[in-house]
Amino acid sequence: MATVPSVSYSITVRLEVSAGGRAVSQLTHAVEHAGGIVTALDVTNAGHERLRIDVTCAAKDTDHAQAIVDALEQVEGIVIHKVSDRTFLMHLGGKIEMKSKVPLRTRDELSMAYTPGVARVSMAIARNPEDARRLTIKRNTVAVVSDGSAVLGLGNIGPAAALPVMEGKAALFKRFAGIDAWPICLDTQDVDEIVRTVQILAPGFGGINLEDISAPRCFEVERRLRELLDIPVFHDDQHGTAICVLAALTNALRVVGKDISDVRITMAGAGAAGTAVLRLLMAAGARNLIVCDYRGAVHAGRDDLDDSLRWIAEHTNAEGYSGDLRGAVKGADVFVGVSAPGILTGDDIATMAKDAVVFALANPEPEVSPDDAREHAAVVATGRSDYPNQINNVLAFPGVFRGLLDAQANHVTQEMLLAAARALASAVTDEELGPNYIIPSVFHPDVAGAVAAAVRESAGGRARGFTEA
Amino acid sequence: MATVPSVSYSITVRLEVSAGGRAVSQLTHAVEHAGGIVTALDVTNAGHERLRIDVTCAAKDTDHAQAIVDALEQVEGIVIHKVSDRTFLMHLGGKIEMKSKVPLRTRDELSMAYTPGVARVSMAIARNPEDARRLTIKRNTVAVVSDGSAVLGLGNIGPAAALPVMEGKAALFKRFAGIDAWPICLDTQDVDEIVRTVQILAPGFGGINLEDISAPRCFEVERRLRELLDIPVFHDDQHGTAICVLAALTNALRVVGKDISDVRITMAGAGAAGTAVLRLLMAAGARNLIVCDYRGAVHAGRDDLDDSLRWIAEHTNAEGYSGDLRGAVKGADVFVGVSAPGILTGDDIATMAKDAVVFALANPEPEVSPDDAREHAAVVATGRSDYPNQINNVLAFPGVFRGLLDAQANHVTQEMLLAAARALASAVTDEELGPNYIIPSVFHPDVAGAVAAAVRESAGGRARGFTEA
Repeated sequence: MATVPSVSYSITVRLEVSAGGRAVSQLTHAVEHAGGIVTALDVTNAGHERLRIDVTCAAKDTDHAQAIVDALEQVEGIVIHKVSDRTFLMHLGGKIEMKSKVPLRTRDELSMAYTPGVARVSMAIARNPEDARRLTIKRNTVAVVSDGSAVLGLGNIGPAAALPVMEGKAALFKRFAGIDAWPICLDTQDVDEIVRTVQILAPGFGGINLEDISAPRCFEVERRLRELLDIPVFHDDQHGTAICVLAALTNALRVVGKDISDVRITMAGAGAAGTAVLRLLMAAGARNLIVCDYRGAVHAGRDDLDDSLRWIAEHTNAEGYSGDLRGAVKGADVFVGVSAPGILTGDDIATMAKDAVVFALANPEPEVSPDDAREHAAVVATGRSDYPNQINNVLAFPGVFRGLLDAQANHVTQEMLLAAARALASAVTDEELGPNYIIPSVFHPDVAGAVAAAVRESAGGRARGFTEA
Repeated sequence: MATVPSVSYSITVRLEVSAGGRAVSQLTHAVEHAGGIVTALDVTNAGHERLRIDVTCAAKDTDHAQAIVDALEQVEGIVIHKVSDRTFLMHLGGKIEMKSKVPLRTRDELSMAYTPGVARVSMAIARNPEDARRLTIKRNTVAVVSDGSAVLGLGNIGPAAALPVMEGKAALFKRFAGIDAWPICLDTQDVDEIVRTVQILAPGFGGINLEDISAPRCFEVERRLRELLDIPVFHDDQHGTAICVLAALTNALRVVGKDISDVRITMAGAGAAGTAVLRLLMAAGARNLIVCDYRGAVHAGRDDLDDSLRWIAEHTNAEGYSGDLRGAVKGADVFVGVSAPGILTGDDIATMAKDAVVFALANPEPEVSPDDAREHAAVVATGRSDYPNQINNVLAFPGVFRGLLDAQANHVTQEMLLAAARALASAVTDEELGPNYIIPSVFHPDVAGAVAAAVRESAGGRARGFTEA
């Protein structure tokens, strides 16, 4: 899929060559000739006759990695001992762990952290259940819940295969917002069972992050859990994406000098992300929208509308346009794609209004080639890290949950999502703003804190001091 | 409850006294006069006129802690600013956290740990589900599951109040066996729902530790989960206790020179722990047993037998004794109590056979005063840390799960429990063995490893290397 070598397809080849001669210099040459990039070369054992070397190189994909190994085989006198995949090495044994925050070195420490001391803490919570947010991990813990039905772009691969993704998500929660998240991968795809299971395990968590649950089931799961639970429930594929898109669009419109309430917006994708983006854009003032799915524009006359599509038909496309995406893009100020690869061409983008804004967020292959789009649009954003303006949920969900937990919020509201998007957009200053910088980098140090503060404030500023015993 | 000051009732008093005069020396005197023990005295702010001091002292219980504060109030010129409970301070914000094991400093690292790199790891697991034990946290992770129905000796206090205990348990798993455990506190006490919930969340865990679920529900929950899951399910209140009791009894009988197949054993308690102890003692060769509950000896003629009690009646008490506990103890070689405080006296112990063994494990108040029991029995053990021979589950469960995870075991067998008990007993050498040392300290460095090795071997020696990618 990737067109250039990437570390996510990086391999380490442990090999042996003769110490004399040109063998060593031939290694790098062989890798580069095969189209790879040597990123590290470590001599792990140097003898008079033979050298043992770990060569690490980036490849384009697994076939390419094999081609690089084949090329190395041709180096004179080489013996290849082992080929390790760096990504797999990184995942070996899982990516997260549990750590105790209390010392357990002595009997005294045991008797405070566990029996008999812990009994008094339990009784305090039994008397006043709200104390669980003060005296337990509930204060800072989020469950990352998936049924494995729509994992990344991989489809319905089930709960075990979803686990590496949910672990990664948990690691991101800690990295960007200091939150203790734990993956819960569910061995059911029945809506009633998902809802009941999450309800039953909720007491130990301060928030629920739903992840990679396919539409339209995800809508019902979230809606019912929000009614049942007194902790916030947030489906990141929907609302994390929506926050990032609204923030990026806010800044893109700053760049081109247009107003969200005036622009015509065409969207591709009416799934979980598309529906949430649509709703948040409308909440932010967008009024002129057409949503297309794989059958074309969503309009009231279609005979295949489920609840979600019917809502879209009733709230968008006032003129009842019933053509395809290509036609819907013509004359539009904004295109937002959260759908499928390569459904538009540069020529289609050329038919959009002057100073067009194109968000082609399908990953890893966007709806339209970013290079082609940039020839005709004023601002282009993608979900990819190898182009400017990456729309990445990591910009939203850590700060959102940080704010929710700090406010001890019981619910997520649309006002909080809008506040998060405003804070995210504001992280780009007037001086920084430009067609190639409408959204901050995921490593921008202020983003999570700014988003958290906005959400906390929107939650009623219920931030509380936690330091008193 | 405690009769001597304990750190589990420790307080820190932040106060101010005049810098001159005798005030400082009066502080310690006041605490000790009130029966407390000063364990730390930190001057946090020293001025010419006034000193600010943190005085930490151990108390017997909360009333006693208040009495100590009252005594301090009497010191001349004192101002008490704040009284902190050290145990509550330790629990503030929870006792465990999630930690990422992978670096997330750069885009390259993000792209290996999360998208796009993680997709290849997920696909590998989708193709070969067993790879989840190699490439995810499942390899080293245990769910500590409770419904809060029988927490410590506190009764049915519910899932939120159980959370501090389950966090402590998770911390012990890491401290003693390097296992990543996460608490799952269930907001249901319905057996069907508990079973279904645990089944649904099982994919992300390598084992299930059931905890503090009341009898007889715990038996059915465990039995059904063992049938449904391909990861080990272990109710610690049952089997952890049983392993420790069998190990301690093995060594106690070594001390008094009796054989388990010959001795007469009287037990008090037919709940979760009692039933599991009974079954494991029988599996180890015990043949002559009587079990009593609060209504007296369990025998076939009783009209209140549920399934569990009926099994006991059919497998013990061959002579059909129908009297009370006191009568059942008479002439017995061994008493094992996992029941209620103060149900026997020293005089009752005096009626036992020569070289009697008494395990009075009710906590914190044993079935018989250990001091009284020691006047008449050869070996006495309790569940308390302030007497010799503490029977503490921490000796068993970390090593058991370490062995199960390392063997990638799908099930727990009684043979594994017996092997664990043998390994635990063997940790006490012939040289060390004596009436006051029948079971190792919880801090004995070899215990968890020895128990783990025994369980792993019993699981078929399926230990596998994990280092290859």
